[in-house]
Formats: sequence, structure tokens, C-alpha cells
Amino acid sequence: MQRFVNNRDEVVEDTIKGFVKAHRDIVRLAENQRVVTAIDRPAQGKVGVVTGGGSGHEPAFIGYIGRNMLDAVAVGELFSSPTAKSFQDAIREANGGKGVVVLYGNYAGDNMNVKMAMKLAAKDGIEVATVVATDDVCSAPAEEQAKRRGVAGEIFMWKVGGAKASMGASLSEVRDAAQKAIDNCRSVGVGLGPCTLPAVGHPNFQIEPGTIEVGIGHHGEPGVRVEALKSASEVAKDMCQIVLDDHDLGSGTEVAVLVSGLGATPLNELYILFDTVEEEISGRGLRIHKAYVGNYFTSLEMVGATLTVMALDEELKSLLEVEVRCAATL
Amino acid sequence: MQRFVNNRDEVVEDTIKGFVKAHRDIVRLAENQRVVTAIDRPAQGKVGVVTGGGSGHEPAFIGYIGRNMLDAVAVGELFSSPTAKSFQDAIREANGGKGVVVLYGNYAGDNMNVKMAMKLAAKDGIEVATVVATDDVCSAPAEEQAKRRGVAGEIFMWKVGGAKASMGASLSEVRDAAQKAIDNCRSVGVGLGPCTLPAVGHPNFQIEPGTIEVGIGHHGEPGVRVEALKSASEVAKDMCQIVLDDHDLGSGTEVAVLVSGLGATPLNELYILFDTVEEEISGRGLRIHKAYVGNYFTSLEMVGATLTVMALDEELKSLLEVEVRCAATL
Repeated sequence: MQRFVNNRDEVVEDTIKGFVKAHRDIVRLAENQRVVTAIDRPAQGKVGVVTGGGSGHEPAFIGYIGRNMLDAVAVGELFSSPTAKSFQDAIREANGGKGVVVLYGNYAGDNMNVKMAMKLAAKDGIEVATVVATDDVCSAPAEEQAKRRGVAGEIFMWKVGGAKASMGASLSEVRDAAQKAIDNCRSVGVGLGPCTLPAVGHPNFQIEPGTIEVGIGHHGEPGVRVEALKSASEVAKDMCQIVLDDHDLGSGTEVAVLVSGLGATPLNELYILFDTVEEEISGRGLRIHKAYVGNYFTSLEMVGATLTVMALDEELKSLLEVEVRCAATL
Repeated sequence: MQRFVNNRDEVVEDTIKGFVKAHRDIVRLAENQRVVTAIDRPAQGKVGVVTGGGSGHEPAFIGYIGRNMLDAVAVGELFSSPTAKSFQDAIREANGGKGVVVLYGNYAGDNMNVKMAMKLAAKDGIEVATVVATDDVCSAPAEEQAKRRGVAGEIFMWKVGGAKASMGASLSEVRDAAQKAIDNCRSVGVGLGPCTLPAVGHPNFQIEPGTIEVGIGHHGEPGVRVEALKSASEVAKDMCQIVLDDHDLGSGTEVAVLVSGLGATPLNELYILFDTVEEEISGRGLRIHKAYVGNYFTSLEMVGATLTVMALDEELKSLLEVEVRCAATL
């Protein structure tokens, strides 16, 4: 394995240590060493905003902690849910007396552990609301949207929820804004190459050279088809079709667009994809209000990309404009 | 080749097209389609700040165009210098009547083309000053520092030069500040895996599995040694030793530290490296004023990382603090 690790079983510990050192002006480690919080948490009189998930998706999740974004993150092992205890402790850290919203992705482990943490938080006397991200179109058909996984649309959900909370909104208002954000998101992933968990030592799935897996998940979950690799333009068209066909958007709708690399795809190729994505979206009469292109939500060194489109209204637009200060920004 | 490209010979065109579309609130394409500028260029009465270089290093160079950073960038083919004409046009675009500083890296093609562009700019009546980055320690011994290549230290050079120019400084003042920044920088690169130019179709150098190339350049230029791959901690110690032994810094010196991935290394591994980098730097009595960890200056999908350490004085610290708005930031 060509990589920078120490003990293969302590990748997450070492990552957190380096992360907290690098960004000590933004984050701090909680007493629970699997919880990272903003330095100025808890903020009294503000709704706390929490997420959590498996590691290996950096800068998600910890990179989005900071002013007007996430207050605390529960950190799991690579590609594994954080424990219920870590979610509970993240909720405690983020609690400023006005309740805490947990904005997380739809994975079995996360669902189970967040539910357990909510019970524990109730004993702590903390009111908790949740929003579960289900933006990954290919992970279940439209009529079973609640079964879909959460992917890069979560970043919009956090940004909207974090901004709303920063404006003094109530728990239900923050939850509703975050829920609207993720309801307005559709995402799709395509994979060109797998990734390897250091403790495993070999790729945990395969993508044959010359092929592309359309609809692949963030942990290599199977997509909807494997086909011969096409040009970037054709791939981008397929991604747009999947996302936009699932999204009933009227002409003139404004959207935010996020093209994220999965880890090992060069940034210039994400721009090549975006070139066609922009054409396709504009071609459907939609207007791109804001675009994000980069490595926002990765899967170790997986080769591939995701596309997320969020339909905007005036509230979402203004919440997206709220400036944030977190590690994932320069 | 598992990648997102259209015509293999038009990778740079397609990249620029997507980039300018994604960031139209920050950049625009000049009449010369190989020059990208800030949207509000030229700014009258401000020194213009220009760079240029081969493509494939995104977000460098175009990602650093924007307010208080670069005004214009000449874009070359993948891993190849921009033409003299493109450098000339970038200088013209950045010219606000107070002269233009070209802050670029020490590569034969760039040197030649910038010199030619300066002659052309003189005919245009534009005063031009240059700073040539030579921060890559392993590319030549200390007594031949002028032969060293420029690498990720260029980002600090641009940030310092851009900030100084934004404060209304004169051409010589901007040049001096940028020169100080790069003189205070030392960098080293390590490679774990090669990259492939799409038009070539196979890696243009080899790194055997189980080995690491220490001192490797941004285009796969040979390093100083190839050895068995060690732990992240040992690699980070080696990188610090190379950089800090070349840097005569007194105890208590404040530094800025940049750990950049080369393209395909997962972000979490950069944090793992930083964890030891921080220990080593602190262990020498130096103080980290600011740390940057991420994909700041890449080489397509090369696997590896670079470390840059810049010694700070009060001027450099205050210039680093000037806020910028460019694509490489969220």
C-alpha cells in the first residue's frame, strides 16, 4: 500500500490529532476523543448543529466544523458509524440550551446510533431534532426515497442548517431549513477506481479498467450499472440526467451545484466534468446561482466524482450566502 | 486510463472552460484563451500580480486568482510553460499603470518565456519586475540555490505579493515582499506513485510499490533517494529534517507550514503527516503561526505530498492575514 500511515489500526486517531493541531484556531478535541467541536462551543442561546459519520471522507465531516457551520462532529472509524456515546457527547458539546439538531446521512449504523444518542440526550434534558440526508438518487427508486443514502448533499444541509442556527432561529426552524435543503438536493456518484482501507490492505471492491460504475456509493456500494468508460462529457451528461430526471424543477429554477472528487481524481478533471454539467443544467432552463468544484466529500483514494444539485428559493439562497469559517476553506 | 477527459489533446482548454464557468464571480477569460484574470482587472493604481505555469497542478495556478491574490495567470499545457505571448498578455491584463510583478517558478521554459514577455512588455511601456521561486531544497544544493525549482512555496509568495499590492505598495515594494516570502521558504516533496499525462497514456516515471522517492519534483523530476516506504511519522521526520536543516532558523522563530497533497493522496493522510510535522517543528523550538493542510499544489493524480515551511517576521505575518477571495477557497 502506497500511503502515509503509522499503525493501520490508528488511522483515525492520527488523523484527528493532526487535524486538531492544524486548525486549533477553529476546532478543539472534546473530552471524548472521538468528538471534535468548534472552539467556541457551546454557544449559549443558539441551536447546536451536530453531525457525525465514518472517517475517510475528509474534509467531511470534521472539516465543516466552525463558525456558522457545524458545532460538533462525532467521528467514526474509517467508513463506520460513530458510536451512540460519541453522538451523545457531540450533542452535549453542542448544547447551548436551545436544543440540538443532528444532520446526518441515511446509513444503518448512523440511524441506530443517533436514535440511541437521542434517548441518552433526553435523559440529559437536551431537546434533539434530526434530519436524515437521502440525496443519493441511485441508492433507491423515487418511490422509496426514504431508503436512499446521504452523500454530498449533506454539505448543503449543514451549510443551510448552520447558517439558520447562527441567525438565532429556533430548533424547529433550523430543522425545517436543513430538511428543505436536503429535500431539494439530488446527487449521483460515478466510480473509476476503488479505495483500500489500510487495515484491510486490499481494495474492498473492484472497478475494471476501461469501465465506469454509475450510481456507486461513497463506500463502494454497488451502482445501477457498469459500462464502458466514456468521455467526460458523456459521463457528465449521464450524471445530469440521473439527477435532473429525479428532480421536478421548473424552467428558471435557480440551483446550487456541487461537483466533488472522490479522492484521487485530479481537480482539473472535475472542472472538465463541470464544463458539461453547466451546459446540461443551463440547457434545461435552470440557472446556476452558485457552483462548487473540488474535493468536498471524498472516499479515501477512490477515483470518481459526485454531482449534487440543490434547488434554491430565496431563503436557501440567503442562507448559502452566510460566510463560514471552517477548515475546509482556505 | 481511468479518468474524466474528452479529447486528450484538449485537456487544458476543457479545464479552463469549466473553471471559468464555475467561478465567474471571481475570474474571467481574457481575449487570449490561455490567460485567466480576476474579474475586476486591471485595477488602476495598483501593482499587477501575475504568475503562470504548466497545467495539471490545480488549484495552482488559476485557483489563486482573485481579490488580494493574483490578478492574471498565463496557462500552459499540462506540465509545460505558457508561451511568451501568454505571459505578455497576462502582464497586459494585470497592468493598472503602476507596473506588474511576475512571481513564478524556476523552470527553464518559464524563465525563457517570462524574459521574452518582459521585452515585449517593455515595448508596451509596462514596467515589469520578477521574483523566481527556488524553494525546492532537494533540486540543488544550498550553494546553488539559484538552480532550485519552485514548488508549493509559490503559494506563500503569491499570497504575500498579492496582499502587499492590495495595500497600495509600489512595484519594488511588492517585489521585495514576495522575494522575502520565497527566500524564507523551504520545501520538499515525496512521491509514492506517478501520474499520467492523458496525451501520453502511460506514467512518465515509475515509483515501485513498497518504495518512496524523497525529494521528487512536481513533474516527477528525480529526487535524492529511493528507499523502502516507512511509516508516515518517519516520512514526516525526514521531510522536516530536509527542510529545516537547510533553513537556519533561531529558536522561537514563527513559521507558516503548508502540507500539500500531490493529487491522489487522501486528505486524512496529509493530516497524519502533519501530526508529526508539528511535533518536529515544535521540537526545534519553532512556533507554528499558521498551518495549511490540503491539496494546494498538485501534480495530476500523483501520490505523495510536499512540505513547505516559511519563516515569518511581522510584515509577512500581517500580509498572510489579509483575506483573499479566490477559487481555491470555499
